[in-house]
Amino acid sequence: MAASPSQKNQLFLGLFIHSIRLGELQYLHDAAVCVDKGGKIVAVELPCDQEKAEDKLYPSLGWTPGDVLVTAAKDGQFFFPGFVDTHLHAPQYPNVGIFGKSTLLDWLNTYTFPMEASMAELPRARRVYARCVRRTLAHGTTTAAYFATIDVAATNLLADLCLAAGQRAFVGRVCMDRLGPEYYLDASPAAAAAAARASIDHIRTIDPGFALVSPVLTPRFAPACSAAALAELGALRRETGLPVQTHVSENADEVALVARLFPGHASYAEVYDAHGLLEGGRTILAHAVHLTDAEADLVARRRAGVAHCPCSNTALTSGEAPVRWLLDKGIAVGLGTDMSGGYSPSVLEAARQTVLVSNHLAMPAAAAGVERAPDSHRQPPDDNERARAKLSVEEVLHLATRGGAEVVGLSDRVGGFEAGKEWDAQLIGLAAVPDGGGEEDGGRAGAGAADEGNVDVFGWETWEDRVAKWVFGGDDRNVRKVWVRGRLVHSRSPS
Amino acid sequence: MAASPSQKNQLFLGLFIHSIRLGELQYLHDAAVCVDKGGKIVAVELPCDQEKAEDKLYPSLGWTPGDVLVTAAKDGQFFFPGFVDTHLHAPQYPNVGIFGKSTLLDWLNTYTFPMEASMAELPRARRVYARCVRRTLAHGTTTAAYFATIDVAATNLLADLCLAAGQRAFVGRVCMDRLGPEYYLDASPAAAAAAARASIDHIRTIDPGFALVSPVLTPRFAPACSAAALAELGALRRETGLPVQTHVSENADEVALVARLFPGHASYAEVYDAHGLLEGGRTILAHAVHLTDAEADLVARRRAGVAHCPCSNTALTSGEAPVRWLLDKGIAVGLGTDMSGGYSPSVLEAARQTVLVSNHLAMPAAAAGVERAPDSHRQPPDDNERARAKLSVEEVLHLATRGGAEVVGLSDRVGGFEAGKEWDAQLIGLAAVPDGGGEEDGGRAGAGAADEGNVDVFGWETWEDRVAKWVFGGDDRNVRKVWVRGRLVHSRSPS
Repeated sequence: MAASPSQKNQLFLGLFIHSIRLGELQYLHDAAVCVDKGGKIVAVELPCDQEKAEDKLYPSLGWTPGDVLVTAAKDGQFFFPGFVDTHLHAPQYPNVGIFGKSTLLDWLNTYTFPMEASMAELPRARRVYARCVRRTLAHGTTTAAYFATIDVAATNLLADLCLAAGQRAFVGRVCMDRLGPEYYLDASPAAAAAAARASIDHIRTIDPGFALVSPVLTPRFAPACSAAALAELGALRRETGLPVQTHVSENADEVALVARLFPGHASYAEVYDAHGLLEGGRTILAHAVHLTDAEADLVARRRAGVAHCPCSNTALTSGEAPVRWLLDKGIAVGLGTDMSGGYSPSVLEAARQTVLVSNHLAMPAAAAGVERAPDSHRQPPDDNERARAKLSVEEVLHLATRGGAEVVGLSDRVGGFEAGKEWDAQLIGLAAVPDGGGEEDGGRAGAGAADEGNVDVFGWETWEDRVAKWVFGGDDRNVRKVWVRGRLVHSRSPS
Repeated sequence: MAASPSQKNQLFLGLFIHSIRLGELQYLHDAAVCVDKGGKIVAVELPCDQEKAEDKLYPSLGWTPGDVLVTAAKDGQFFFPGFVDTHLHAPQYPNVGIFGKSTLLDWLNTYTFPMEASMAELPRARRVYARCVRRTLAHGTTTAAYFATIDVAATNLLADLCLAAGQRAFVGRVCMDRLGPEYYLDASPAAAAAAARASIDHIRTIDPGFALVSPVLTPRFAPACSAAALAELGALRRETGLPVQTHVSENADEVALVARLFPGHASYAEVYDAHGLLEGGRTILAHAVHLTDAEADLVARRRAGVAHCPCSNTALTSGEAPVRWLLDKGIAVGLGTDMSGGYSPSVLEAARQTVLVSNHLAMPAAAAGVERAPDSHRQPPDDNERARAKLSVEEVLHLATRGGAEVVGLSDRVGGFEAGKEWDAQLIGLAAVPDGGGEEDGGRAGAGAADEGNVDVFGWETWEDRVAKWVFGGDDRNVRKVWVRGRLVHSRSPS
């Protein structure tokens, strides 16, 4: 029941903004979008107000006005596609912001494995997962690709909670039969495969067509999986056709470890490919910071996608992923919060940091006092190539929506406002600065129920500038309402 | 009147956290801080509750209970010193987040000079400045070093607004007699000096002892000032003893421009020194991304401070300031939002980005696809030196408070909770996660009046971990109350 879409036909009116290709946002002013009872967009018309919609669109759809729920964006608000978070770990949610000066491999042992293992206690998992799902929805994440833990019951609980909350989700039981502490390992490759099956079976029971929640095969990453475990999951992939998610080339020490553990293989990515985990064209590879040229070509050839996680990569000092270079290779790129390597539940923050990390890549020289070691496998590019690394606001919003949809294999269903897609959307509102600038409010600007967030619009800004202000200053306060498949799943005020 | 401190003696009770030296936070649990009618801390005692304060502290202070306003931090809340924003441009506030792919010199012409010039229209300046002051206060900024514009009346208005709102501020009329467009330049060096004097005189009228608001001599930066204009301001500095603020070595092209414009000088910083603008030990130098070794030594010798502006430096692709190296040189470092080169009014965001930028400096190699040009004047450091570049949560909170106080010359008055200092403080609250994780709220987590922000505390976290979560996930919603010199200047709920 909870997963069922809205029971009414719906009309949305106002400004709609979405990415139509990398670097190009389309602004649909005074538009109307009709969404049917199944949550699917069945008409996009502009210019169009309610009267015109009733006169022109309803008859062709067989709708009658009394049967339609109308939602109009107020002046200054706009509809935007829901964000796709292509990579996050729900059990690590309590650790957001806690990483100290660690890097990947010690971070796993110090912070991550103990927290993940503790989710086997189901009331604890329920509290953590419910909060994580609520928070991400509140930040406009309509689709999330979750790593759960090795525990089947807790993984199934996460799937239940996503379905109940109405968040589109991929939920993966984590497979790991080495590297972890004794108390947090699969007993054998066969046990890992059996546990994966158990979680798949559960999700098939609660959402038979995987309309909202889907299982995803989840080998943690090559260093934590024996070759036999990878082979088991590869076989399961071929059998089920399910998507795969894992990590690749996040950290230099990790890359070296993979080379030691899998000496017969040409690269980290090739380890996955050799075990049947890249070949389905539905694999999400998180990070991809340190891919070699040949490795990136392999990823592109297999049509695997990359979950770019800038917050995490900077927090854990993993590196600066060369997103422009990945895109140039023809690889699909989406954004991931990667909590809790990443410190924020917000895909908007990931988008902001994607711009900033791309700027770091474009900086002309290391600053005084510290300098990078030269990269081992590429020639220094010229100034123009460095400048090309910079990603624009429009580009990162593409990655946050349509790019993410491509990475998780949902390009045909979400990411933009075309007829035939499903209504996964957020209503964004910005704050209008009063004439007096707020002097008159007695020192309580932004306080209480009227808190509209930090993005101040003076009124003279172009829409392009407002979008830039939103990307750099926005937060969950700007997310007024969120829908998935037509269902209202979050609202900041009673709707 | 508005600038007068609280009229009552005050007792603050609960947990107080402050930095006592770079890298070390002190946690004063169950403590009491007494603040007199003048806003000065007169006693710090622990452990101490209200009863003990009344029995032990009040008699020695000559206080009676009926004469004392008591504010107790709730369980889970803590007092923290107010933030010092060592560098921001109030007239650029409407442009936060708007910078595109520009770098410093084209950014000035495209976005900045037109916006600054428009502040000559006073109703517009009032709206922008009032909002800027309110926003920064709401983010816990109790002291701000503002660049205004070349317009004296608008500069004076900014000083008036800071005084009325109760924000401790340095307000600088900007001097620039070249580089800018025709419509936005001082007519001559003498005119620049006269305008600076006019603004100083105004502030002396409204706040005679500069107890809350102080003028600051503000040559925009060397490329925008003739040698004669710099000399006029240098003479004014010697005459008045006032502090100075300007920019230095933000961007590589700017550094090259200074070398061309001032061919007789050893370095960018030496240009200021030669014109008497470093010698008072009260100069705030914003950015300092590309200082040479000798230049940094000069800055250290002159006891000038650096306003580190990581958000701006990354947004404008200026570079990564080597903060550890500056600190090793013995230079005082504070944090600046640098709106609108920086995209956020929050010093907490600047602190967060200070950690992240320091991590970029520590990254072992450029990523694939892009590589930095080698730095011209320093040897590549080894791995340990790179790792040392990383700044901790404790270190950046020091820079945000005590470091900033040192940079703006207020070390004896603000930055920590010692008797003798003034009560510039913020009360921080984090969100406690309910047992059900928020499932029970009907999809409205974080909505409306009960919105306590994004920092979720589950209850098992150490205080060190809570502070890290605050630094990485906090925003103005966590700033429940703000005081300057004992006066309550911001509150998120009726106090």
